[in-house]
Amino acid sequence: MNKTSSNIMALAPNTSNKRETVCIFGTGDFGRALGHKMIQSGYPVVYGSRSTQISNLIPKDAEVLSHAEAAQKAAIIIIAIQRQHYNFLIPLAEILRGKVVVDISNNLKLNQYPESNAEYLSQLLPGAKVVKAFNTVSAWALQSGTLDASRQVFVCGDDMEAKQMVMNIVRALGLTPLDQGSLLAAQGIENYPLQLFPMWKLPIFLSFGLTAFFFCYCLALDVIYTYIYENKNFSFFIAITIPNRVCPVMALILLALVYLPGVLAAIIQLYRGTKYRRFPDWLDKWMLCRKQLGLIALAFASLHVLFTLVSPMRSFVKWRNGKGIISQALNNKTEPLDSTNAWLSDSYLALGILGFFLFVLLGITSLPSVSNNVNWREFRFVQSKLGYLTLILCTAHTLVYGGKWFLSPSAYKWYLPNIYMLSLVVPCTVLVVKFVLVFPCVDKPLTQIRQGWERTPRYSE
Amino acid sequence: MNKTSSNIMALAPNTSNKRETVCIFGTGDFGRALGHKMIQSGYPVVYGSRSTQISNLIPKDAEVLSHAEAAQKAAIIIIAIQRQHYNFLIPLAEILRGKVVVDISNNLKLNQYPESNAEYLSQLLPGAKVVKAFNTVSAWALQSGTLDASRQVFVCGDDMEAKQMVMNIVRALGLTPLDQGSLLAAQGIENYPLQLFPMWKLPIFLSFGLTAFFFCYCLALDVIYTYIYENKNFSFFIAITIPNRVCPVMALILLALVYLPGVLAAIIQLYRGTKYRRFPDWLDKWMLCRKQLGLIALAFASLHVLFTLVSPMRSFVKWRNGKGIISQALNNKTEPLDSTNAWLSDSYLALGILGFFLFVLLGITSLPSVSNNVNWREFRFVQSKLGYLTLILCTAHTLVYGGKWFLSPSAYKWYLPNIYMLSLVVPCTVLVVKFVLVFPCVDKPLTQIRQGWERTPRYSE
Amino acid sequence: MNKTSSNIMALAPNTSNKRETVCIFGTGDFGRALGHKMIQSGYPVVYGSRSTQISNLIPKDAEVLSHAEAAQKAAIIIIAIQRQHYNFLIPLAEILRGKVVVDISNNLKLNQYPESNAEYLSQLLPGAKVVKAFNTVSAWALQSGTLDASRQVFVCGDDMEAKQMVMNIVRALGLTPLDQGSLLAAQGIENYPLQLFPMWKLPIFLSFGLTAFFFCYCLALDVIYTYIYENKNFSFFIAITIPNRVCPVMALILLALVYLPGVLAAIIQLYRGTKYRRFPDWLDKWMLCRKQLGLIALAFASLHVLFTLVSPMRSFVKWRNGKGIISQALNNKTEPLDSTNAWLSDSYLALGILGFFLFVLLGITSLPSVSNNVNWREFRFVQSKLGYLTLILCTAHTLVYGGKWFLSPSAYKWYLPNIYMLSLVVPCTVLVVKFVLVFPCVDKPLTQIRQGWERTPRYSE
Repeated sequence: MNKTSSNIMALAPNTSNKRETVCIFGTGDFGRALGHKMIQSGYPVVYGSRSTQISNLIPKDAEVLSHAEAAQKAAIIIIAIQRQHYNFLIPLAEILRGKVVVDISNNLKLNQYPESNAEYLSQLLPGAKVVKAFNTVSAWALQSGTLDASRQVFVCGDDMEAKQMVMNIVRALGLTPLDQGSLLAAQGIENYPLQLFPMWKLPIFLSFGLTAFFFCYCLALDVIYTYIYENKNFSFFIAITIPNRVCPVMALILLALVYLPGVLAAIIQLYRGTKYRRFPDWLDKWMLCRKQLGLIALAFASLHVLFTLVSPMRSFVKWRNGKGIISQALNNKTEPLDSTNAWLSDSYLALGILGFFLFVLLGITSLPSVSNNVNWREFRFVQSKLGYLTLILCTAHTLVYGGKWFLSPSAYKWYLPNIYMLSLVVPCTVLVVKFVLVFPCVDKPLTQIRQGWERTPRYSE
Repeated sequence: MNKTSSNIMALAPNTSNKRETVCIFGTGDFGRALGHKMIQSGYPVVYGSRSTQISNLIPKDAEVLSHAEAAQKAAIIIIAIQRQHYNFLIPLAEILRGKVVVDISNNLKLNQYPESNAEYLSQLLPGAKVVKAFNTVSAWALQSGTLDASRQVFVCGDDMEAKQMVMNIVRALGLTPLDQGSLLAAQGIENYPLQLFPMWKLPIFLSFGLTAFFFCYCLALDVIYTYIYENKNFSFFIAITIPNRVCPVMALILLALVYLPGVLAAIIQLYRGTKYRRFPDWLDKWMLCRKQLGLIALAFASLHVLFTLVSPMRSFVKWRNGKGIISQALNNKTEPLDSTNAWLSDSYLALGILGFFLFVLLGITSLPSVSNNVNWREFRFVQSKLGYLTLILCTAHTLVYGGKWFLSPSAYKWYLPNIYMLSLVVPCTVLVVKFVLVFPCVDKPLTQIRQGWERTPRYSE
Repeated sequence: MNKTSSNIMALAPNTSNKRETVCIFGTGDFGRALGHKMIQSGYPVVYGSRSTQISNLIPKDAEVLSHAEAAQKAAIIIIAIQRQHYNFLIPLAEILRGKVVVDISNNLKLNQYPESNAEYLSQLLPGAKVVKAFNTVSAWALQSGTLDASRQVFVCGDDMEAKQMVMNIVRALGLTPLDQGSLLAAQGIENYPLQLFPMWKLPIFLSFGLTAFFFCYCLALDVIYTYIYENKNFSFFIAITIPNRVCPVMALILLALVYLPGVLAAIIQLYRGTKYRRFPDWLDKWMLCRKQLGLIALAFASLHVLFTLVSPMRSFVKWRNGKGIISQALNNKTEPLDSTNAWLSDSYLALGILGFFLFVLLGITSLPSVSNNVNWREFRFVQSKLGYLTLILCTAHTLVYGGKWFLSPSAYKWYLPNIYMLSLVVPCTVLVVKFVLVFPCVDKPLTQIRQGWERTPRYSE
């Protein structure tokens, strides 16, 4: 029998529910929380500590010994100590030789040290089998047992058997181990819990800025202008009317911004005649946050749908409708159905519904579990073909809705264009350029370039 | 070449598509279904049976031998026999030594036996490499080939190579193996298929009870009271009006119940001055089903939105609106726009829309594939910050909607408060207590306690 | 120390960030893209090429050698060459003995060759450890770094250590390796990227055909008939009115088609008296695309909801409502509330809302990440119990909505039934048959048959 199986047998032998002793160096908060949880799961736990006085806080069933004694009692040693104190382990190097040493530390900043804590530990203890694990779990969550969030524990290490042993403990604690490969992955694993939606920052700031601008723009034109020149108090427009103007504008612009970098990239590649030169940095960053931009656009579109659908319930709308009907009744006449109007109203609603429907489909396919189940061809089909169809439908929805106002001078209060005219600039540009790029005389060289062909004269310049 | 690779080579050698013989003990329904599927996937199958007469039901291409003969023909033996008959395997222990023995049995009740079936089998056959697998798949699904549900097969065992061999078979049958670690996991794997939404029971019963209570309460006040005292038949309120009163009330109360245990836990910790004592059992249970409570609240909120949005299509609403307009027309006057009313109506609608929007966002982040892609910091940000914002918005929505009725005596039919007043009790309590907890003089000691600090005098009591 | 760990230590030794050289045979587009990415991730890359002249296109930091020299420099050789040129590797077999050879090729058609490319390569180089990987990633995605879609890389191979080494590289490139077992899985992995929604084709064609038929049917009855006989131009019905008739009809029929095959299968099994004979091919295919049918039905139902909810905003609807109110006002009377009408309108709306709500629930549980978290019992409960409840609610919704027109002759324009009558045929059939199947006298033998029992006399026929 080779070493792999013998070792694992030792960890979980047939004599049911007998688990192997685990040693924890350090009696800080996380060390105690982990010890508690391990004892609950049936592991004998021994703490290694400078002072072997038994503190109140340490779980009752755990033993507390000196570091050297504790380490000798277990095959797995968990280092629940901060990196800056790792030096004290150097004298223990001989005792830790061949043992599985688990680094669970986190840093305070991204890339705080040149090498990861686990790699540093591995350099201090060349004979030990260092495994990185548990750093993505919070002590509070372990303690309270309410692991609502991710139960995933990233594990990495150079020794397969050591990794297996640690992954078995992770599973026994009710968590899900995820093998991340060799110790080189430790840097990434240590950075992971420090991030707060890194890819979302740029799109969210952009959206906030644009939303604030458009909100003020609408406030000026719809509330302040009306108050000054028509002496009407429409301040309640702030609650629904103005948000319902800003939301669709934001949704359309952000959706267009999702497809703009792809169009720009195509133009750059056509101009350069090669795909083997890097895009400018801003374009790279932009391309990497397209998914986030698209999801924020979907959020605005959903809000627009909700704001629109509640409109028949608004006091103001009921009053306006009632006024129209009463004036007809008082004039003793019924207006006939205006067929053109019916066509316009129905078609912009239908275009909006279809556009929103496709938009939600795009959103659903970007869920991780769905996009993991489609291959590249399918993903490109959905995100590119359906995506452009969505953009076309939404742009058409806006055009049909506002078309009649383009030539009407009353739409230009203070000589400023209405907000939906502004919203059409970016999507129309994207659609026109994309339309040009689809022509065979442009599409063919672009496809060649993307398959690796190069227009050589330009390259040697 | 070591044993691992040689063994796996034997399973799937380079001589393409030649698969290793598999032996199945037992010709019951599941044994036959598994055999069928394996033969379809290219495995030679040999059955071990008491009577070697070939039954009609056994797949045609399979051989049927005595147990001993069948076992000698294969390296993997699948035990498709119920646990109470495992004893007959004891005489075969010598033949099964070193073989991979797969336990696929299920029990009828949770934790029916002290040890799992797989561990029991492993005790009976100390020389065999026992692997637990396939128990989560149904025979009917294997047979009909229509695996709509989970294709996941949990696999556990103490021997890595044996596990690898079984996982290869699982993959060859078109299923997805999930390594669950050592044989200690077998108990959990055997319990898994017996569960029917265990975490959902309490929240669902609670919701049913509360819904029934509020439905009757509304029925009494809105239909029966009106019928008795005003002699109007509003029985059709049962279809939409009353559900649309009960749903938002349920949504708000359940959402508040999601955040109440967190607030209670904080109070308990502050009082005790330590986090190292367990919460009372009921609080632990409550905390564990917060996600389910939240999702049920979201379901009620969604129903509320749908019920509200269809209201302009209701006969009753159309009739009521028409009546109001006709009476104005007959009186020959047009009421001016009531600006306060417009403000109230628009702002409660806007608050509701924003609250619902954030609520849906919370729901989406609780999808397993999304929550697995965010780290602890991000998850806490969404569920805590956004969650409280949702609660605030939804409470404000209810307050603005019903505010005018608090002081009106007509709202107290039979001296009972209107239902939305009842719905405000829990969320307002949670928000007030949370507001107090956020004050620095309370927040600071709480944070210290959660980081492991203890107010010692109390501890030694 | 055994071979496993020594080998992995070689790949990622403790001397931080030192990665092992990788050799790439072939300087085509994918070879170059992979090389670029590997150099970025810190791997020294050496290309094996026929001409050792350094091309402009090859990444600057890579070395270019002859095939034999390059292969000797690395333990991992990636074959970025098309299958028809694999023959040139035969003379190199001795050099490649014991090395890890990675096949990344794709074919142009499904099942183009009798054996997979990786298995063919393994036959050509019997001493090499062949691993299949990277074929599901596109060169364009690697190049541009914008991996929006799946980051999953399927890996398979007969040698565990070789697979581990390749999986470590996959992880280092920021991708997620998925172990698919032995080299027998290569055929499936090579077919994967060629598929374009294979399970969706039949349901989508069916939906398109039915939708086109119903659209024309409605167009004839609602627009053309009205134009000819009543001389009214209702052409704008094309935008919303007709789609909102076709969508619910499609949703109901497709939902019924999801449950029809289950009912048919039960009848066939009862008739045959056994479950051990295969269903006809068309039934098998039908059963396999039930999930897709259900999701398309959900899409139609969602569109129906949106089309219905916007109706109060339509010009035509406003005009029609206004007309009704004005005529009442002009006649100087107010119609009293019609209680029956109020009941009918409210109950069909409520039934529709509940049906749609359950339908969305069914859709959410069919998300991969949700269905992976429920066991068979739970999945069957949701999809069968809740599914039939949805079908019942939706059928009742249609019946209540259209009930009054069944006996009215004006509903039969051109002697053709109204579209919603057609839509009721399939769901009512399914529900009636299912109702019969639930009776104990039918349910009991069916359950026995599904548990493996056989009515023997029939079997021997």
